[in-house]
Amino acid sequence: MVDEKLRYKIFICSDSIGETAETVVKATARQFDMTQIEIKRVGHIQYEDQIKVVMEDAYSENAVVAYTLVQPELREMMKQEAIRLGVRAVDIMGPMMQAFIDTFNNIPKQEPGLLHKMDENYFKKVEAIEFAVKFDDGRDVRGLLQAELVLVGISRTSKTPLSIFLAHKGIKVANLPLVPEVKPPKELFEIPRSKVIGLTMQPEQILRIRKERLKALGMPSGANYATLDRIIEEHKIASDLMKRVGCPIIDVTERAIEETAAIIISLHDSNLHS
Amino acid sequence: MVDEKLRYKIFICSDSIGETAETVVKATARQFDMTQIEIKRVGHIQYEDQIKVVMEDAYSENAVVAYTLVQPELREMMKQEAIRLGVRAVDIMGPMMQAFIDTFNNIPKQEPGLLHKMDENYFKKVEAIEFAVKFDDGRDVRGLLQAELVLVGISRTSKTPLSIFLAHKGIKVANLPLVPEVKPPKELFEIPRSKVIGLTMQPEQILRIRKERLKALGMPSGANYATLDRIIEEHKIASDLMKRVGCPIIDVTERAIEETAAIIISLHDSNLHS
Repeated sequence: MVDEKLRYKIFICSDSIGETAETVVKATARQFDMTQIEIKRVGHIQYEDQIKVVMEDAYSENAVVAYTLVQPELREMMKQEAIRLGVRAVDIMGPMMQAFIDTFNNIPKQEPGLLHKMDENYFKKVEAIEFAVKFDDGRDVRGLLQAELVLVGISRTSKTPLSIFLAHKGIKVANLPLVPEVKPPKELFEIPRSKVIGLTMQPEQILRIRKERLKALGMPSGANYATLDRIIEEHKIASDLMKRVGCPIIDVTERAIEETAAIIISLHDSNLHS
Repeated sequence: MVDEKLRYKIFICSDSIGETAETVVKATARQFDMTQIEIKRVGHIQYEDQIKVVMEDAYSENAVVAYTLVQPELREMMKQEAIRLGVRAVDIMGPMMQAFIDTFNNIPKQEPGLLHKMDENYFKKVEAIEFAVKFDDGRDVRGLLQAELVLVGISRTSKTPLSIFLAHKGIKVANLPLVPEVKPPKELFEIPRSKVIGLTMQPEQILRIRKERLKALGMPSGANYATLDRIIEEHKIASDLMKRVGCPIIDVTERAIEETAAIIISLHDSNLHS
């Protein structure tokens, strides 16, 4: 049984589904020592009465509230209830909307749920995700020709999660594992080298990750795949290949996916604009 | 050539990489008629002087600034410069941090970049993404047994993007296409039915999406795959199967991935807690 008192409760209130507010809440929570966070989402809020109910709950559970409400009357009710009950309620999008209005003299649409509008960008993103899944791990070399970016690297250099993360930004990414025993496809040398990104990681870290992976898979840890000699050999052959291709090489050691992705996006953007 | 004056410029300043602020900026932008938004990210800010330079730029380009700065002296400098130059600068995480401090009497760590800390959750997410890619589209039926959730549906009911989206929440998801000509694997009937989610979509919308897909692939639009008769047949067989499995069925017509995912997560959570 978890002691109710140990939990920090955060309510997310939204006239859409609360995805934006949750992003901010989670980023904030990481700044605190909070192992016992409980997030409760209340989405699709349409009426002022719903806000009253949620805020009474928040009050009785000593929760912090984060909200994204687009309609002025709902935001107003939220502010009033927060003051009345002494509950901390943070408007996640309001200040940004106000800054847009003040600076650009532009008027908001006040339509809830626009966050998830199925527009051109949405479909582009979905298509890019399907592309990344289809052309993951060198499954089909035709992907190399169709892709906007091709990630290459030895096993466990985070090619798959990176491809998916970049797909969320609408970029079509294929990835190709580099294995000493397998000759890379000729397509890799036919595409513009600016489309190729090499990923490397320090052999010691690869070793650690591969050992963990074997353990997770219930396989003996002594496999050749997880020996330093083997990894150094793979690393060397991969580095030589990347030099031959002439692509930029990113060392992903100690870098989170989001950080590596930010570097790749900035390389990609500068290619598009050059 | 794009007229410089037509662009709405937003600067994102962060001591990490600015991912959280970008989420809020993009959600806000969708509330306005802004086809010409230009976002410039300035990440890894460490010194007060860097803020001065960025803010001078923001001033001269009439940009709005969104920032996530964890260290108090950087936030202070940002506020001062915003006032001095008359630039609108919105603190994306500050108010949420303050609400945590006030409500939970907890002290923030003031370490930039915690957003991307490679903690247990991070590795769980990466593992879930790799799982979703590996077991997409019924590639390996062993995935059905290992998955926390199994999505089933006919072609174009958004199984792949949904699996990936749920993976980002740390849930291991496999998906299985339902095709009249292929007998579903026996594993589908062996796993707890609460782990299975059926996806359906109105045949007319499936037809539209499939036709577009054929066009995108450069294939003739008259293929059997994109006829209403065929889709209605698939739909019927899939519905019968879902009833046999006894799983919840979600109609994804007119629902964005994020919305369907929110429904699935709430079903999944209630299973975990029952």
